[in-house]
Amino acid sequence: MSLTGPQGFRAAGITAGIKASGRPDLALVVNDGPEQTAAAVFTRNKVKAAPVLWSQQVMTTGTLKAVVLNSGGANACTGPEGFQTAHATAEKAAEVLATGAIEVAVCSTGLIGAQLPRDVVLAGVEKAAAALEATPDAGLAAATAIMTTDTVAKQALSEQAGWSVGGITKGAGMIAPSMATMLSVLTTDASADAATLDRALRAAVRVSFDRLDVDGSMSTNDTVIVLASGASGVTPSEQDLTAALTEVARDLAKQMQADAEGVTKRILVRVTGAASEDDAVVTARTVARDSLVKTALFGSDPNWGRIAAAAGYADAALDPEKLDVTINGVTLCRGGVAAGDRGLADLSGEDVLVEVELGLGSGEAEILTTDLSHAYVEENSAYSS
Amino acid sequence: MSLTGPQGFRAAGITAGIKASGRPDLALVVNDGPEQTAAAVFTRNKVKAAPVLWSQQVMTTGTLKAVVLNSGGANACTGPEGFQTAHATAEKAAEVLATGAIEVAVCSTGLIGAQLPRDVVLAGVEKAAAALEATPDAGLAAATAIMTTDTVAKQALSEQAGWSVGGITKGAGMIAPSMATMLSVLTTDASADAATLDRALRAAVRVSFDRLDVDGSMSTNDTVIVLASGASGVTPSEQDLTAALTEVARDLAKQMQADAEGVTKRILVRVTGAASEDDAVVTARTVARDSLVKTALFGSDPNWGRIAAAAGYADAALDPEKLDVTINGVTLCRGGVAAGDRGLADLSGEDVLVEVELGLGSGEAEILTTDLSHAYVEENSAYSS
Repeated sequence: MSLTGPQGFRAAGITAGIKASGRPDLALVVNDGPEQTAAAVFTRNKVKAAPVLWSQQVMTTGTLKAVVLNSGGANACTGPEGFQTAHATAEKAAEVLATGAIEVAVCSTGLIGAQLPRDVVLAGVEKAAAALEATPDAGLAAATAIMTTDTVAKQALSEQAGWSVGGITKGAGMIAPSMATMLSVLTTDASADAATLDRALRAAVRVSFDRLDVDGSMSTNDTVIVLASGASGVTPSEQDLTAALTEVARDLAKQMQADAEGVTKRILVRVTGAASEDDAVVTARTVARDSLVKTALFGSDPNWGRIAAAAGYADAALDPEKLDVTINGVTLCRGGVAAGDRGLADLSGEDVLVEVELGLGSGEAEILTTDLSHAYVEENSAYSS
Repeated sequence: MSLTGPQGFRAAGITAGIKASGRPDLALVVNDGPEQTAAAVFTRNKVKAAPVLWSQQVMTTGTLKAVVLNSGGANACTGPEGFQTAHATAEKAAEVLATGAIEVAVCSTGLIGAQLPRDVVLAGVEKAAAALEATPDAGLAAATAIMTTDTVAKQALSEQAGWSVGGITKGAGMIAPSMATMLSVLTTDASADAATLDRALRAAVRVSFDRLDVDGSMSTNDTVIVLASGASGVTPSEQDLTAALTEVARDLAKQMQADAEGVTKRILVRVTGAASEDDAVVTARTVARDSLVKTALFGSDPNWGRIAAAAGYADAALDPEKLDVTINGVTLCRGGVAAGDRGLADLSGEDVLVEVELGLGSGEAEILTTDLSHAYVEENSAYSS
């Protein structure tokens, strides 16, 4: 159960024919209200895909009736023609849903630099509109239609007192440094004004999707959209709304980590004792992104010296004489000096906890990442060809 | 010919017994003068190895008689005991060379976090001192003794009018973002005061070693030292000295690129039209470091969209409508839009030229890097165990 768990939503996922493989490639999510409040967060990449440019425009109203998502092509670096395709997609959805194009956001994912087959996409929107349902299966179909190198569809639901938050996401590579090549749609039947929903979404993304870093690459297409229907009649506090959005976003982020390209280890890098939370994030991200750390963990090698070196070149305060490094509960570096027996750190399992204590303050943060494996190289050396 | 090309230098490379493999592991370079001017550049990592801490101290005088270098252990994260080992190594070299410890720099490379066998190192210094020669073979022996995962010894020489610059280096991984896990010693028989030599070295390193980025990791041990003997009797202009040091440093950097861990492609990322040189360096480095770009090129896939995406998330000015991307002479993206036939970009060879034109100004820079291959993952997942 995901998008259609909260009341007031219908979804569909169908095969439009964009992907040569014949797999599902177009999803539609519709907010039937009574309210149609929305908020979104987009990639900070300066090279933005056409659907991101379109959706940024329509989000200025703080309301959305629907979101169209496609896999099989990013519609990025496609110029005016690509923008017209995104616009036409929104126009088509607006036509079949009897609303205005300004109420329709568009998201795309896939190869950069190829035009989408516009007629195929527009026909797909009509087909998806005809398939819209409020069933759990409809949410799953939408989650399935946005998959690229994902191997499993990703859904989450958080039940609250009389209201709920649901969500889907896709993303398996090009994930970081803030959000992923990820598209995510969240729904809630809570009632919330646009400003509150926007703040709640940003707060949730900051500690969930923004804390997932698979390969340090930031996509041209990253988009997270939340739609609020108000159908539950409940207006939760901003704190409760933020907490529920965060719960769903974290759940989805962990699913993306577990399904990341070539993953054999799920790695959590926890930095504590930093001079600030920002310093903790920067240090954790630098360790999480270091190729030598990631390959060592792929090899089940507790090579903590690479972790210390990565922490040391992070752009954050660090006193080498106060640095502790712990792997899976075994402290291997204390006060900047080798400590303990590296043979005791058991890396045979799939989960690895890397703890870095800086001893400087109370800043702390966690970053989710993965190892760097042969399979990552294999998948990414053969993606577009 | 390398270190001993310039007049006034002797070198040695021997097997001290630090490496379990029994391969050469200790080098000694001696400046017999008449002058003993020196300059050095060290890692900016906040976690600095003991020999870096020692050598930073002795460099405050601007003079050096000798440099001791060992492979087989980084002597990093080794606390006071490790620092005492570095100090004792300099004391031993000073004793056998009849000078003061403050005239001896120490460099180490290898696994982080293990103590060096002090007695073995000190006996090695005596053995190396007995082997010192001014022959070409002695320079090669020194270059060989500092190898870690390097597969070939790396030497260079630049002959000028009546004087010359020679050098050796090692480095194959953990290379970036400014200098490598690299140790390099340069020698010259030019005469130069310490301040001029320091400026010339920094200028040379900035456009050579600093422009090599294999994996974005910055080591705890990076050191480049230049020794000037004045034995030629020639005092070149600062410009000529800088040019000769740059020539040798670039030659050595290219050798490191060609021998980088797991390399199958030598990649040059050239950014032009940037708003500033700094922006060009940042953009080129971001593209060079992007795992998705590196895996695509490993797969001989001209996936220019990943290059555009990486340029777009670099922390530098970029206008997506002015972005051109060219691979091996074939422009695949013009004005931010797909252009040309990606099938025309021939990636079958070992050398790849990636050109990114930003269309904003006159800033330009080049970064040398490598692809991300199965062999990189293999070497680095099994390095310490």
